[in-house]
Amino acid sequence: MKRVLVTGAGGFLGAHTLAALAARGWSDVHAVSRTPGRSSGATRVTWHACDLFDPAAVGALMRSLKPTHVLHLAWCTTPGEFRTSSENLRWVAAGITLIEEFARAGGRRFVGAGTCAEYEWKEGAYAEESTPLRPQTPYGAAKHALESLVNGFGGQLGISTAWGRIFFPYGPHEHPERLTAYVIRSLLAGEPALCTSGEQRRDFIYASDVADAFTVLLDSGLPGAVNIGSGEPVQVRSVVTEIGAQLGREELIRLGARAHVAGEPELMVADLRLLREGLGWHAKVNLREGIAKSIEYWRNDAAVRHATDARAMR
Amino acid sequence: MKRVLVTGAGGFLGAHTLAALAARGWSDVHAVSRTPGRSSGATRVTWHACDLFDPAAVGALMRSLKPTHVLHLAWCTTPGEFRTSSENLRWVAAGITLIEEFARAGGRRFVGAGTCAEYEWKEGAYAEESTPLRPQTPYGAAKHALESLVNGFGGQLGISTAWGRIFFPYGPHEHPERLTAYVIRSLLAGEPALCTSGEQRRDFIYASDVADAFTVLLDSGLPGAVNIGSGEPVQVRSVVTEIGAQLGREELIRLGARAHVAGEPELMVADLRLLREGLGWHAKVNLREGIAKSIEYWRNDAAVRHATDARAMR
Repeated sequence: MKRVLVTGAGGFLGAHTLAALAARGWSDVHAVSRTPGRSSGATRVTWHACDLFDPAAVGALMRSLKPTHVLHLAWCTTPGEFRTSSENLRWVAAGITLIEEFARAGGRRFVGAGTCAEYEWKEGAYAEESTPLRPQTPYGAAKHALESLVNGFGGQLGISTAWGRIFFPYGPHEHPERLTAYVIRSLLAGEPALCTSGEQRRDFIYASDVADAFTVLLDSGLPGAVNIGSGEPVQVRSVVTEIGAQLGREELIRLGARAHVAGEPELMVADLRLLREGLGWHAKVNLREGIAKSIEYWRNDAAVRHATDARAMR
Repeated sequence: MKRVLVTGAGGFLGAHTLAALAARGWSDVHAVSRTPGRSSGATRVTWHACDLFDPAAVGALMRSLKPTHVLHLAWCTTPGEFRTSSENLRWVAAGITLIEEFARAGGRRFVGAGTCAEYEWKEGAYAEESTPLRPQTPYGAAKHALESLVNGFGGQLGISTAWGRIFFPYGPHEHPERLTAYVIRSLLAGEPALCTSGEQRRDFIYASDVADAFTVLLDSGLPGAVNIGSGEPVQVRSVVTEIGAQLGREELIRLGARAHVAGEPELMVADLRLLREGLGWHAKVNLREGIAKSIEYWRNDAAVRHATDARAMR
């Protein structure tokens, strides 16, 4: 029998992951989160309140639950902060505790969420085996440190390990200040969306695709780091203008109103040979569809918040 | 005023480091060790008993001592175990605590001890900027993870950081099962020394040179990872036969009695451009001299132990 514990389950990718696990037939799913209960309708999930920074609490949870699989998504993710926050260091220490306690409790496979920020920034395609791993940000350094430990110690701990390096995810449940959420929310509110000139190309991937790829990776025996992306670089301006077109509010988009981040490459795209050949996995949701679903999500969110505000005003 | 705290000060390189700091004029030297007091005659060292795995104890020590510099040498080093032990994970967590508490207490510069095992094993010269960082052992993965964190978070923590990647150190105070110690001890005891065929070439560096390089690195502002080696690859068989020649017991050396470790490169040598040009540092002790000093050390050790045994037998 398989029993999976998902950390960060209340976060952006966590919500999609619980749904993806259900869709792939996982029936014994457990979730840990700082904000338990936010599962967006995924069925058969048991929520656990556990402070991942508390080694004793993590050990107790592992001993009582004895999960066979762990999908470790929890991390600090607040836009504007997560790239440089020293909280990243605490997440590395928490990750060490998590994998040790998981192995000690008889766990079998541990998959963690990494990032393309683990790679040295360069132009072009990023491959697991050949692109230099010299992160340019503290966030990337911390994620890469934990990757090095997870994949370096699986054998010693007697467990199978893998690490999904996520490229540029977007979709429902993302932080409202992230790119697509910010643009959609601005246009829904009739306000201008301030963007860079948007010529840079990125490997955007819809959140439910990220979640599905993790679910497949978790169920496989594929070891080590695996890029998770769509493999199709899209200009940031194309994403933004697609939102404008779908909402009929192109005039609110201000390309060039923000400066580029210095040093960021023009093109960042995942080499997906491992994901495609090793796992047989391809992204399913194209940009138009992903944007449409994101708009629907934020429209409902705005409606819910409007109703809440209206109630509060009564 | 500068005040340095040395961790692992009771270990192999720690003993040499305390002497090197004294020789370079550091007058306010503090040492932490599991085996406090073993300072081999270095003067003006204050020893502290502190469990580096206990975050509260580390925080208390930093707050009371307020060191301006830390030289972090402590790690698990038992031959035959350290390459794969999951204790390496605890040392990563301990390193995170150490640097955070050091920064919080107003520290200025943190230098850690790394290893050539952080690099992907390949033939030839290893350079900080270009050799892939894909460690082949859990030990290398853990050291590299901490390097990534130390150098990735120095800026956020408001401290200057560096990391010395040590190649193949030897000399007095090393573990008795390490190569030169083992061969010297065997020959001193009149017993055969079982070695590989020894054709592989390694960048051996005498321990006091390692210590002196760390002292210079600590006092500089050079950031990031820096190789610490002699830059002169020597065949392992040359080291072993030098010991045989100096002791006049060549007949006890059994080259080829042990198998090579599979996958280890034939040639591993440090690219020392950064150490030489960035720090202006060169190794001072050549192999013949280093072996002579090592023999002297173990001869005295044997004499001490013989005297101790003799007392115990009375």
